[in-house]
Amino acid sequence: MNKEKLRAIIEGNAFTAVIQFLILSSAVVFVLESDRAVWGLEVYATHFIILDWVFFVLFSAEYILRVYIEPRKRDFIFSFYGIIDLLAILPSLFLLPGFRVLRILRFLRVFRIFKATRFILAVDRLSEALRGIQQELLALVILSLMLVYLAACGIHYFERDVQPEAFGSIIDSMWWAVVTLTTVGYGDVYPETGGGKVFTALVTLIGVGLIAIPSGLLASALTEARVERQREEVEDEQKSQSTEDNNANSR
Amino acid sequence: MNKEKLRAIIEGNAFTAVIQFLILSSAVVFVLESDRAVWGLEVYATHFIILDWVFFVLFSAEYILRVYIEPRKRDFIFSFYGIIDLLAILPSLFLLPGFRVLRILRFLRVFRIFKATRFILAVDRLSEALRGIQQELLALVILSLMLVYLAACGIHYFERDVQPEAFGSIIDSMWWAVVTLTTVGYGDVYPETGGGKVFTALVTLIGVGLIAIPSGLLASALTEARVERQREEVEDEQKSQSTEDNNANSR
Amino acid sequence: MNKEKLRAIIEGNAFTAVIQFLILSSAVVFVLESDRAVWGLEVYATHFIILDWVFFVLFSAEYILRVYIEPRKRDFIFSFYGIIDLLAILPSLFLLPGFRVLRILRFLRVFRIFKATRFILAVDRLSEALRGIQQELLALVILSLMLVYLAACGIHYFERDVQPEAFGSIIDSMWWAVVTLTTVGYGDVYPETGGGKVFTALVTLIGVGLIAIPSGLLASALTEARVERQREEVEDEQKSQSTEDNNANSR
Amino acid sequence: MNKEKLRAIIEGNAFTAVIQFLILSSAVVFVLESDRAVWGLEVYATHFIILDWVFFVLFSAEYILRVYIEPRKRDFIFSFYGIIDLLAILPSLFLLPGFRVLRILRFLRVFRIFKATRFILAVDRLSEALRGIQQELLALVILSLMLVYLAACGIHYFERDVQPEAFGSIIDSMWWAVVTLTTVGYGDVYPETGGGKVFTALVTLIGVGLIAIPSGLLASALTEARVERQREEVEDEQKSQSTEDNNANSR
Repeated sequence: MNKEKLRAIIEGNAFTAVIQFLILSSAVVFVLESDRAVWGLEVYATHFIILDWVFFVLFSAEYILRVYIEPRKRDFIFSFYGIIDLLAILPSLFLLPGFRVLRILRFLRVFRIFKATRFILAVDRLSEALRGIQQELLALVILSLMLVYLAACGIHYFERDVQPEAFGSIIDSMWWAVVTLTTVGYGDVYPETGGGKVFTALVTLIGVGLIAIPSGLLASALTEARVERQREEVEDEQKSQSTEDNNANSR
Repeated sequence: MNKEKLRAIIEGNAFTAVIQFLILSSAVVFVLESDRAVWGLEVYATHFIILDWVFFVLFSAEYILRVYIEPRKRDFIFSFYGIIDLLAILPSLFLLPGFRVLRILRFLRVFRIFKATRFILAVDRLSEALRGIQQELLALVILSLMLVYLAACGIHYFERDVQPEAFGSIIDSMWWAVVTLTTVGYGDVYPETGGGKVFTALVTLIGVGLIAIPSGLLASALTEARVERQREEVEDEQKSQSTEDNNANSR
Repeated sequence: MNKEKLRAIIEGNAFTAVIQFLILSSAVVFVLESDRAVWGLEVYATHFIILDWVFFVLFSAEYILRVYIEPRKRDFIFSFYGIIDLLAILPSLFLLPGFRVLRILRFLRVFRIFKATRFILAVDRLSEALRGIQQELLALVILSLMLVYLAACGIHYFERDVQPEAFGSIIDSMWWAVVTLTTVGYGDVYPETGGGKVFTALVTLIGVGLIAIPSGLLASALTEARVERQREEVEDEQKSQSTEDNNANSR
Repeated sequence: MNKEKLRAIIEGNAFTAVIQFLILSSAVVFVLESDRAVWGLEVYATHFIILDWVFFVLFSAEYILRVYIEPRKRDFIFSFYGIIDLLAILPSLFLLPGFRVLRILRFLRVFRIFKATRFILAVDRLSEALRGIQQELLALVILSLMLVYLAACGIHYFERDVQPEAFGSIIDSMWWAVVTLTTVGYGDVYPETGGGKVFTALVTLIGVGLIAIPSGLLASALTEARVERQREEVEDEQKSQSTEDNNANSR
């Protein structure tokens, strides 16, 4: 079988559907195996090992096929999806006799789910939009971390005497800072002193806005990219239209 | 009475107002009937049955009328509003003698409220904008579900030993993941180990942004569509203006 | 003193600063008077009455002046700011001998704060942007209310047996629906059954996005309006520039 | 060594990396010193004093160098970064014999972290975008504060009798207002009366949107600025391209 035919099969709908089903099954099996005590599935221990073997063999076969059909093998192996595909099979190596020591890394099979990103159409647009705003994003991430640091230091100053178990150290106070600034607000820790409350009010009113900017930025960037794409499509149509007209005229 | 006249009546303000009033009344009656024990309305049990009959008859009449005036009946019946209108009367079928077994489905009358979407002007724009960004939305939904899955697996790993009742299984941990990533943060479950807190900080700082993108995307898309619409209106005016000018010149 | 001079004074910086100070003082005094038991300010009861009189007289004088200088008095009286200015003095009428019965409405003095909106420059832009997106906003508000209704009915169905005190009626469940969908999540009520948790996960993942759209919409609309304004300014400059050039050439 | 050479060094990568490392180290040391009781680091008290001296001397040297190479020294000293650099060394003055009384201000060393903003590339864009929307931002901040005030007054009215410890005064109620409107929702205070719950529902559904607008506004402004920048770059390229073409033609 030549490579071109194989590539057509691998990029075809049937193969894609099978791989998608395998990824989803792998995630479901991972959960069931992990929760087997809860669901009373311990009697199926052997079945889980068999399923492990199935995923290991099939994902390995997929990886080998993808490397095989690729003309620039090295580029693929070190590409994002190449590494993801490799990471999807590595944690199952413990199944092989000489690698039982890797049993401890079985948990890493959870990352198999990343293989699914290959099939999400708009992931390219998302990552392109992310690249377009990476400098702003970096600035916002650094400013957010600075805010978490300053908020933690501030609340520690106000609350350490009243609530030493929650705000006794800056490191502990950072937990409060993250939970508050992301507006999750579990309610396990919150300021009780007047000063701490005023400080919290100031920090949240500023910080909540700061931490919400990145997603707005990405949303705007995606919209701009889409509008730009549509404009280009319209222009391309008009060009090809006018070329046709010219051809018609010149005849 | 011919169909055109009937259509004019059905699409007229009076008929529309009556239907809107019926939908709202139906929702209010649904709540009162459901809460009748709380409000001491149990003595009105017969009245609720009568009201049930009234809504059943009137919504059925409306459905029949709408089908009757439609030239392409099949298209309407299988359209979004056709199905909604049908679903609004089906759960009341239990009132008829032979269908008492459907009593269990009475709860479905709650979906009558969807009939109201027909009268919201900008719903078209919303659904159009949603269609324009559906690939990005699908990508974001899949990425969000992946994040919920990974967050649940991660927190289960950190917290299962300390809080087995809340994080003892991945399935249970997913409740925490959803409550945290949507920033609802009830506070019924939260990490207590150092590792779990650091993991939560990382996951929320990333995930909160991811889950907020879709609404920003839709907001931007709606604004773009509105700007485009206004530009076209201005251009149309200018065109008709210049046509008038030309006409004036050529006279 | 003629009206034009008076208008210049009223719209001048000094008068504006005095009114702004009065509005702020009025808010501070309102809080202090309300909390006088907490702050041990009860001995100053007479002072609060005197301050009441001062605000009453000064805001009345301001209102009379504004009406006096206005050529179209009726238009001003029924305008937004005309009504706000009147409402700012009405709740103090109880100070007058014949109106003591209005004492109960004293709480309404809290709305004096709305007088401050006159001095916020960009409020015009905000209300203009709001007007531009009012149809979308109305649709989103109706959809949000529908979501609150459906979420309350759903959670009532799942949780009524387990937590009758919080979810025993649909009306009570609405409190949970609002607190959850706005992502406030106090944690006073939350689902405990498996079905209720799955339902909550679905509803929040959809609903949180829906309720966040309006602010994104307004933000985008404000930005579009600003960009449009800047473009027009640039074009105006270019026009006046080219007119100057033409004048220079023709000379 | 002449000033130009020195400036090249100071603006070079090596010097920048050293300063960045110093700022980060300073933050880490600040946390460790503050939490030394928790981490059992009290035996290293002398080391912390030495590190204090190191940071003091190095940041002072940096400040002096930056002032020295600046042609307009006064402008730099009163610029944003000039003041930040000065504030970074002032709280360490207590190390000097005559200034021990300043020991109480040691906590201010936390603001050294602001020195890091100099090295974040996109901070300029953020502050430029902020300047572009400052009038809208000011309006939104004032409206938010008005909302907090009104929400606090309202909830105090509904809840003061039932929960006097949390809502007994307007000032106390403001804590609830901030925690609710930012959607943090710790759950330490929440309304319990029916009226308070209805009021909260209304206020949050409006207020949550209001408080989320600024970040959407900034996100949109940043995107507009980026699109504008890219358009100008494209136009500049086209211009230089056409100039080259003209040159080629004229030859």
